[in-house]
Amino acid sequence: MTGFVSFIGSGPGDPELLTLKAVDRMQKADAVLFDDLSSGPILSHARDDADLVGVGKRAGRPSPKQDHVSRLLVEYAQTGQRVVRLKSGDGGLFGRLEEELVALQAAGIEYEIIPGIPSAIAAAAAAGIPLTRRLTARRVQFVTGHDVSGKLPADLNLPALADAGATTVVFMGKRTFPLLAEALNAHGLPLDTPALMAESVSTPDQSLHRSTIGELSEKLRAEIGTAPALILYGPLAEFDDV
Amino acid sequence: MTGFVSFIGSGPGDPELLTLKAVDRMQKADAVLFDDLSSGPILSHARDDADLVGVGKRAGRPSPKQDHVSRLLVEYAQTGQRVVRLKSGDGGLFGRLEEELVALQAAGIEYEIIPGIPSAIAAAAAAGIPLTRRLTARRVQFVTGHDVSGKLPADLNLPALADAGATTVVFMGKRTFPLLAEALNAHGLPLDTPALMAESVSTPDQSLHRSTIGELSEKLRAEIGTAPALILYGPLAEFDDV
Repeated sequence: MTGFVSFIGSGPGDPELLTLKAVDRMQKADAVLFDDLSSGPILSHARDDADLVGVGKRAGRPSPKQDHVSRLLVEYAQTGQRVVRLKSGDGGLFGRLEEELVALQAAGIEYEIIPGIPSAIAAAAAAGIPLTRRLTARRVQFVTGHDVSGKLPADLNLPALADAGATTVVFMGKRTFPLLAEALNAHGLPLDTPALMAESVSTPDQSLHRSTIGELSEKLRAEIGTAPALILYGPLAEFDDV
Repeated sequence: MTGFVSFIGSGPGDPELLTLKAVDRMQKADAVLFDDLSSGPILSHARDDADLVGVGKRAGRPSPKQDHVSRLLVEYAQTGQRVVRLKSGDGGLFGRLEEELVALQAAGIEYEIIPGIPSAIAAAAAAGIPLTRRLTARRVQFVTGHDVSGKLPADLNLPALADAGATTVVFMGKRTFPLLAEALNAHGLPLDTPALMAESVSTPDQSLHRSTIGELSEKLRAEIGTAPALILYGPLAEFDDV
């Protein structure tokens, strides 16, 4: 008897931003494996007798290794359970979904993937900013601000990221942003390009900070804090929401 | 007495991919203004006595002008109604959200923006494809395949779009894809780059076609069809979902 795994994007944190399908699968689950940012009120949809297993990875704290998470997932499914694997935002966007899919494939375990609201999409909505605009912001790009060692990735496509005609969202990039902003500026992006830092999006701790890439860079040089954050820059970052 | 407008991303089409917040607002709405791709079963969450107003714009068919939609939205809100404005996918991604926000701001009408599952995110989940991968696909970009006149936009950032280390999703780009693929190839992207065309994502008519940018281009030169489609290309487009 083999179980089944539902990979679920839990959205940015607000339990009201779960999809109906996500709630349905959580209500049926025997076990829920969740990340730090998929915890709290989101888990209230799980059954009282479901196993709730935190497998969180969060910047700056020791956390289970990825292969440990994959192994745990396989083990739960192999006991015949209905397993939900909650990943914050959408699992396919910087969620290391692939490594877990490959582990399940190797073990012959069936799964489904249920998309979630990406945190970048929720951040823009919270700030009242459209991500695209005819003529001036026709391209949107998402990029991660750190590699496995926590540094700014060495192989970033800087000309693409320095395009003043795109909206760019940097995931997990608070620590490396000063370095990135310098590199962007060296590739021609003005330091007064509008920027928005969105922390703890859609939670009670949400904080939105409007700035420019230059000023934000100075701010982050001085203090980073521990809240998970997205940094959005481009012409639409200063869109005037009333 | 002034009403209130909830802009809601309705997701790609599957009513189960609505968020709990979207369902809540639809149940409370006096009027629902919806696009073509936000119709059908999604509307079943509206009250029986709610006004359901189609304001669809769909490629190739005559449709209401954008300023007419904005005016309609303002008029409904000015009669004091609770209005839901449904936009397929997420309203901030190629949904011309900004023009409607500006109209409401000018009329002094309050609103909220509720994010939705972007169709690109749902297409990847349906195909079992993560959008990012450590080392080989660290950047994701979304772009529109046509300008107001239906042509390939003249100001696309082709070097950014020809990056073999990114996952790219082209929205509304079936007609112009052969031209785009040629331009990408001229900028160094090989014609055998994996590509996936996803039509009518998350609906009963969903169709996923795995290919390469060269072959897909040939296919679309021969026949386009009328189904709404996304084209995803990059190293992850051939990820082997079981």
